Amino acid sequence: MQLFLGIDGGGTGCRAAVADAAGVIRGRAAVGPANIASDPVGAAANIMAAAEAALAAAGGGVVVAAGLGLAGANAAGAPERLRAVLPWSRMAVVTDAITAVKGALGDGDGVVAALGTGSVFAVQRAGAIRQIGGRGLVLGDEASGAWIGRAMLTAALRAVDGFTAMTPLLAGLVDEMGGPDGVVAFSLRARPADFAALAPRVVESDDPAAVAVMDRAEADVAEAVAVLRGAQDLPVVFLGGLGTVFAQRMAGRFPIRAPAGTALHGALLLAREVA
Amino acid sequence: MQLFLGIDGGGTGCRAAVADAAGVIRGRAAVGPANIASDPVGAAANIMAAAEAALAAAGGGVVVAAGLGLAGANAAGAPERLRAVLPWSRMAVVTDAITAVKGALGDGDGVVAALGTGSVFAVQRAGAIRQIGGRGLVLGDEASGAWIGRAMLTAALRAVDGFTAMTPLLAGLVDEMGGPDGVVAFSLRARPADFAALAPRVVESDDPAAVAVMDRAEADVAEAVAVLRGAQDLPVVFLGGLGTVFAQRMAGRFPIRAPAGTALHGALLLAREVA
Repeated sequence: MQLFLGIDGGGTGCRAAVADAAGVIRGRAAVGPANIASDPVGAAANIMAAAEAALAAAGGGVVVAAGLGLAGANAAGAPERLRAVLPWSRMAVVTDAITAVKGALGDGDGVVAALGTGSVFAVQRAGAIRQIGGRGLVLGDEASGAWIGRAMLTAALRAVDGFTAMTPLLAGLVDEMGGPDGVVAFSLRARPADFAALAPRVVESDDPAAVAVMDRAEADVAEAVAVLRGAQDLPVVFLGGLGTVFAQRMAGRFPIRAPAGTALHGALLLAREVA
Repeated sequence: MQLFLGIDGGGTGCRAAVADAAGVIRGRAAVGPANIASDPVGAAANIMAAAEAALAAAGGGVVVAAGLGLAGANAAGAPERLRAVLPWSRMAVVTDAITAVKGALGDGDGVVAALGTGSVFAVQRAGAIRQIGGRGLVLGDEASGAWIGRAMLTAALRAVDGFTAMTPLLAGLVDEMGGPDGVVAFSLRARPADFAALAPRVVESDDPAAVAVMDRAEADVAEAVAVLRGAQDLPVVFLGGLGTVFAQRMAGRFPIRAPAGTALHGALLLAREVA
């Protein structure tokens, strides 16, 4: 049987699926991490292990083409090094962000807003994908969970300093961290995930400071979506842990669709494209 | 001879001066660093060495009272530990930010805007000092050199993404760092001083992106000064490497004064207060 292979590999795990010519998934498997920038040898081994397990689950077959969406694929030289050690002659290697977009949109044109610990936005037009944002918390990641948490701590210190009114939520954050100096100390050691851990209590709060931060976040999402849609009335798919929060807030501003599939579906679509 | 001792100690050096009852400085000295939070033993030794050298330069005398402005004096317990090992019975220990404010304003009421790698603002009313800002680059330090440099890199990536128009200065920064991914990589390893190193080419540029960043910085300085002045027409003293830049930009918005003296002068004023 001729099969298409899809690989979705990231820092925590590597998933594989094989589908037949009709697009029906015949076998799946999941193994350990596959970041081709930080661990190219381990990633290649896990990719092969996942592929072989998925083929075995399908009862065997021949891989016609492979689509791989992998963390670290944007590192210079990493995709080329990987292709040299993998056996498939027809193969495409892209970042896992690209396969997430392809999976979310399928073949159709549209915009993806991915909002989790970080944030990234993309548009697909006639199969071509353009990505913006996703620059990390220091310079970007607007409206992400980390951005929301950090914005609340900034607001808390500005209230302490008398720039704005203190609110119950801000006072609670300052108190919890041991006062303003504790907030500063937290900020100096916090990774993005630590800031993002503050977001859940912000996104649904009616505290005035939380409302102000979420209004700014929504404006940033709207601006990114507007840049990507241009003059077209493209649908928007929200992904990530905060995706549903913004989808609910922004309903009616543009057509919002549920994701068509996962990043693994996107990898299978990629495999069909290169076949 | 009865003398007042002033100490200005920071991460790079410790300066001492002794002044007579008329306020005339009779002896000065400078030795190695004195950060009482990160190196309390070394700081105490350098403070004593600086004090003894200044007294020797004055031809001897008796210390009536000591004023110490020291980096790390805001760390819990640090001032108390230091006082226990120093010989002067009348002694005040504050942060070097406080003695900088006292030195800049002398006995008069006024506002200090200190803008270097970081930023901090303070008001003195009838000898009482209130400080705002100075929270570090992650959560604050608005209008500082580090803030200006980081804002330019954020603007550069937003221009790359199509949010705003690309400008010559932004394109030059992106090119210099090896493209957008290089900008992100720089941001992940940069300390505040690394961002601040980008500021000099921004502050005097007529590039539209630089003008926009400096306008935002000036608005942030104006807001902090307004919070501290309240309804009073207090004079403003600008300190730090970027102090003259903002003093020139903001001339006419409020009375601007040159600093009355240095942090060491502030420490001598503090000594007279506790005498």
